[in-house]
Amino acid sequence: MVTPLSPSRRTTVVRGDRAQSERQHLFDVLADGLICHLGVVIDGVPRVLPTAYAYDLDGPDRDGTVYLHGSVAARSLVTAPAQTVCVTITLLDGLVLARSGFHHSMNYRSAVVIGTARAVTDAGEREHALRLLVDHLVPGRADTLRGHTRKELAATEVLAVSLHEASVKVRAGDPIDDEADLGTGVWAGVLPLRVTADDPLPSADCDPGLAVPADVVARAQTSMRSASSS
Amino acid sequence: MVTPLSPSRRTTVVRGDRAQSERQHLFDVLADGLICHLGVVIDGVPRVLPTAYAYDLDGPDRDGTVYLHGSVAARSLVTAPAQTVCVTITLLDGLVLARSGFHHSMNYRSAVVIGTARAVTDAGEREHALRLLVDHLVPGRADTLRGHTRKELAATEVLAVSLHEASVKVRAGDPIDDEADLGTGVWAGVLPLRVTADDPLPSADCDPGLAVPADVVARAQTSMRSASSS
Repeated sequence: MVTPLSPSRRTTVVRGDRAQSERQHLFDVLADGLICHLGVVIDGVPRVLPTAYAYDLDGPDRDGTVYLHGSVAARSLVTAPAQTVCVTITLLDGLVLARSGFHHSMNYRSAVVIGTARAVTDAGEREHALRLLVDHLVPGRADTLRGHTRKELAATEVLAVSLHEASVKVRAGDPIDDEADLGTGVWAGVLPLRVTADDPLPSADCDPGLAVPADVVARAQTSMRSASSS
Repeated sequence: MVTPLSPSRRTTVVRGDRAQSERQHLFDVLADGLICHLGVVIDGVPRVLPTAYAYDLDGPDRDGTVYLHGSVAARSLVTAPAQTVCVTITLLDGLVLARSGFHHSMNYRSAVVIGTARAVTDAGEREHALRLLVDHLVPGRADTLRGHTRKELAATEVLAVSLHEASVKVRAGDPIDDEADLGTGVWAGVLPLRVTADDPLPSADCDPGLAVPADVVARAQTSMRSASSS
């Protein structure tokens, strides 16, 4: 059973034209993004910090789980458990260049997830989440690496947030100009943007005899914008 | 007189290895980014929303001004004036693929600005800010467009935040692996990422006789990652 999006007032998109109601749109944004922006409140002040994420649609939280991690020394991560946090993922797909400044915009897909941050303490779930975090960067890479040591695990905070309370906004397509501006001779259109990878760069300390693994090559060739978005 | 970064405890980077102390690093991130993530607190809950921004290093606020705008109907913008807000700009430069999951990371540059949001009400400053917002997308384009109408101005909220209280973090370069993992035969390196533009797409309603303007062509050809970052 998959619930629809926007189950609460605070994730209901007020201005309705860009809101998406299908949970699949959330999954698509989660799949295509690489980083999220985590919002926490510290001493009444919002902090917004970029961080890696991973997700598990079959995770233990209602409607699935988004996982974040960081050093136990990172203030925002340590502050977050039991707090209500906001996890936002944004994909920028293009600049929308209208005939007036007012109608300039961007094509984008964004997901906003709000929920209580749960500190992941179960050893199995922690290991699972940390593998997902590596595989979200390069699918398949976790299998090629050694496991985490006890010392590494002790230094790592893992947070989980339910995917239940979420909203997704999408803007795509042409600028929408005022009728009166159409004949003014100003060019209008979209400058499509995407994230591309250059050739993988081996570390200075990497054995030059080692080939770039197939999973890294595949990641470099994957366009990081879904075909449906522009 | 340019002040150094991190003038307050809440923008001081706790884990010091990636912190930058030069204000020029802030300017570089502001110049290279296209969107920011605005953090506000609504009913005690953090909200993080992607939005366009512009900046004016000679703006009226201490150490310069970052400008945001949106519809007066947008809840986060309307809520923000007189609140302390957080404006975060993140540029993702690469995936850092280490020999262990623990040392996986990303190369990035991020700026966090915290300040009291000021609703811009002065007509001249509002117009200036709205021109900067267009020119931040495509430098020079504001000059090619008509001015805002009174109705458009009435529908637009413009916010200003001082650039005074800010921090910048940068991670660049190779993964840093444990000594013991160096000889294990695992490939390690960086997958560099950047934002690239595809060819500009004229609107369906754009006169096919209109050439793509030089400013749009120049924007499409500008790499959106500074050469110094990878």
